[in-house]
Amino acid sequence: MSLDLNADTVTLTEQLVNIESVSHDEQAIADAIEAALSPLRHLELTRRGNTIVARTALGRPERVVIAGHIDTVPLNDNLPARNDGTHLHGLGTCDMKGGVAIALKLAQDLVRPNRDITFLFYECEEIEAEHNGLSKLVVSDPDLMAADFAILMEPSNAGVEAGCQGTLRVDVRLTGERAHSARSWRGVNAIHRAAAVLTRLAEYDARRPVIDGLEYHEGLNAVFISGGVAGNVLPDECVVTVNHRFAPDRSEAEAEAFVREFFDGFEVAVSDSAPGALPGLDKPAAKDFLAAVGGQVNPKFGWTDVARFTGLGIPAVNFGPGDPMLAHKQEEFVPLEHIARCERQLRAWLGEDR
Amino acid sequence: MSLDLNADTVTLTEQLVNIESVSHDEQAIADAIEAALSPLRHLELTRRGNTIVARTALGRPERVVIAGHIDTVPLNDNLPARNDGTHLHGLGTCDMKGGVAIALKLAQDLVRPNRDITFLFYECEEIEAEHNGLSKLVVSDPDLMAADFAILMEPSNAGVEAGCQGTLRVDVRLTGERAHSARSWRGVNAIHRAAAVLTRLAEYDARRPVIDGLEYHEGLNAVFISGGVAGNVLPDECVVTVNHRFAPDRSEAEAEAFVREFFDGFEVAVSDSAPGALPGLDKPAAKDFLAAVGGQVNPKFGWTDVARFTGLGIPAVNFGPGDPMLAHKQEEFVPLEHIARCERQLRAWLGEDR
Repeated sequence: MSLDLNADTVTLTEQLVNIESVSHDEQAIADAIEAALSPLRHLELTRRGNTIVARTALGRPERVVIAGHIDTVPLNDNLPARNDGTHLHGLGTCDMKGGVAIALKLAQDLVRPNRDITFLFYECEEIEAEHNGLSKLVVSDPDLMAADFAILMEPSNAGVEAGCQGTLRVDVRLTGERAHSARSWRGVNAIHRAAAVLTRLAEYDARRPVIDGLEYHEGLNAVFISGGVAGNVLPDECVVTVNHRFAPDRSEAEAEAFVREFFDGFEVAVSDSAPGALPGLDKPAAKDFLAAVGGQVNPKFGWTDVARFTGLGIPAVNFGPGDPMLAHKQEEFVPLEHIARCERQLRAWLGEDR
Repeated sequence: MSLDLNADTVTLTEQLVNIESVSHDEQAIADAIEAALSPLRHLELTRRGNTIVARTALGRPERVVIAGHIDTVPLNDNLPARNDGTHLHGLGTCDMKGGVAIALKLAQDLVRPNRDITFLFYECEEIEAEHNGLSKLVVSDPDLMAADFAILMEPSNAGVEAGCQGTLRVDVRLTGERAHSARSWRGVNAIHRAAAVLTRLAEYDARRPVIDGLEYHEGLNAVFISGGVAGNVLPDECVVTVNHRFAPDRSEAEAEAFVREFFDGFEVAVSDSAPGALPGLDKPAAKDFLAAVGGQVNPKFGWTDVARFTGLGIPAVNFGPGDPMLAHKQEEFVPLEHIARCERQLRAWLGEDR
């Protein structure tokens, strides 16, 4: 599969969508991106695993990151892409190959932008933080991450979303005692003991704090459950994997304390954690971008790598095509108008028209 | 691995235990049994898959089946066998390689028994009925199953257990709607919906009917649970696999109706079913055997192939070494005295001492 950077951005989005790239399986799409960018002499290209970095080096006083992850959640009978004339439908259209397509177009077209640009096309955003292409790049090549401001092209209805919620994953483990299911009174069924855990989850009441005028919305959800030994054995273990999304007024440690208290009486082990990011709308670079693109600023519910950049001291926002409510849903799509609008605004801000 | 039929029965049990034979993986043990029996000229040997049939053909007026399954439930860090002088410990010692060892010894030693004997060493008893070696033999070679009476050497504390409970497996399926876990209010979490199913199971009150003077004890247990799409996605499906054990006063259809009513409001699909067997202690062949071995008759809680024989019109009982309460438990063991007693009583009843 190859990409045609001279095609229009919608066609390019469709080409990206039709290269399957579920997390850990991004080699084909990374190869295609690398092949498309390598002829462009105004970019310095670096590849680390399936993460590709393309940078201008014009010596501008300011450097901007434009970043997009190239992986998707698992297939759900929603490929190939389908263009109905106003929307492009299919896995990854919204989250976030529309944004990746815009970045690729800009990477080709903006030969002499008014700010230096670092384009980051990275792997494994949809899974545990340890696999994330940016988290690896911070370790292997911190210089390539350096910037004054970062734009994550995550779906945000072609508007600006500031801050993001943190995410914490824990395993709640129930134990029991095995026995033959024909003589069940001799054992303890670990799956039955999960009833209390699931009941608490079903009754969870989400906190909705307002920060810098933006209302966040937390969440606490079982994302996996597993247990069972054999069809005739009382299981001695059941594990419920729970994902907590927390507003950026709480630290990772505070979020963990909340979850441990919520599951008081049960065995809880943290498997994955990433902090939220406060909106940070008072930073100069953020103000400049907001003034240029205009419009309403909204809170970001999902965790995005905005948090990674703010953690590095780099102000960052989400700004990309697609409704974030549709991310990870079978019927996800991106409005073609969003793609056009984001691309137009970034071209204008970066000071070069085609 | 080879078996020595000239060793004492405890040693032979240990040899059988040390050949791993989890269901679907019985080739090694079946090969060893076939190799051990094939030199014996007084037996007609037939192999079907990993099920081995060995029959005397003396033209006796009565034929008895002596049967034992050669598979075990999954390993649970409980091999190899360990003999502490009075008990043999390890996976399969109780359920039911002690009984298989006795049958193998009798197959070798009883060259001219007072009744013709059909020894059945069969595969896949611990899993879904469709894989069971006897259920396959009924179809492929019904003549080899013919008998006037059948003894299943399932663990029964070296006493006689009559009848057995039936077993029914169903999948209770919960559905929801996927959404990104950061915006969970947009989806429906199928795992959370399982709370009500597990709560009902945890509160289940078992029926304990008395039949022919024997008290049964039913059960209803989740044996598997699974659900989950990705670590940041609200799952749209959760499946709870439930095993119902029902007393033999209920038919499979009645048991299914009970389970469907118990899970009223949920989607229930039957995946596996096997009927119980009424005690049948009034049948002449059963009376004759009971008189010979004496002692208390107990109800059988677990489903055993007794039900398969009674379904064919052949009276059948369980009679084997080991405590059935220990079957499928990590710490299962068989008392050496049980092995000796069962072997001695069967030798006496079958009319030939060594």
